[in-house]
Amino acid sequence: MKVDHIGIATPTIDEGLAIWRDALGLEPHATEEVTEQGVRVCMLPVGDTHVELLEPLSAESAVGKFLAKRGPGIHHIAIEVRDIKASLAELKQKGARLIDETPRVGARGCLVAFIHPSSTNGVLLELVQHQ
Amino acid sequence: MKVDHIGIATPTIDEGLAIWRDALGLEPHATEEVTEQGVRVCMLPVGDTHVELLEPLSAESAVGKFLAKRGPGIHHIAIEVRDIKASLAELKQKGARLIDETPRVGARGCLVAFIHPSSTNGVLLELVQHQ
Repeated sequence: MKVDHIGIATPTIDEGLAIWRDALGLEPHATEEVTEQGVRVCMLPVGDTHVELLEPLSAESAVGKFLAKRGPGIHHIAIEVRDIKASLAELKQKGARLIDETPRVGARGCLVAFIHPSSTNGVLLELVQHQ
Repeated sequence: MKVDHIGIATPTIDEGLAIWRDALGLEPHATEEVTEQGVRVCMLPVGDTHVELLEPLSAESAVGKFLAKRGPGIHHIAIEVRDIKASLAELKQKGARLIDETPRVGARGCLVAFIHPSSTNGVLLELVQHQ
């Protein structure tokens, strides 16, 4: 198991790159739009994980609402798992509140599912299975 | 460069372990008190990084105030650097607002320094140099 990425909500990708690329020296991958989640995404590898910059496509998207309420900052942590359906079933059995009962397709074509922060120590948790 | 740890504020270490150990299967290291920062700390390795559970020793500590204001959740990201003094100087030169102008001793005897979230995309950033 490893941390696939740390999602950071930012008004614009460029604002994020000013920190993570220009000040800290990380090298960004190409930017990708994930229209289903209403975000533009830019991944920056660091060690065996990534910083994921999340720019909202609209104020009504989840990230747009997060920015309006809390401002820029850490939005979620994504954990890579081998079998996302099995992990979801196990977490549900242990009392976790699933936002996604079944995985959907996220950035980079991965299967993803979110767990509600009310059942995970206040942390919005994403499970990711690479395909 | 890599992510040394992701710091998560939690009312108690046990509450954090219920998620990260019991539900997600991570193996915790021994708990450590860092009195200077007013926290009890428990590290759980995951990939080449760690989840760091932070339990406040008092309501007046930084983590105690964070919990009172925002509830449990992600508190900061720590980046491992080779030369923390050089990194601090470089970040300052690039306009970052340093909380610690000079490094101090943190958990596991590391040299650490924090950067203010106002200059880092809303993310409280910690630099860590292992000794």
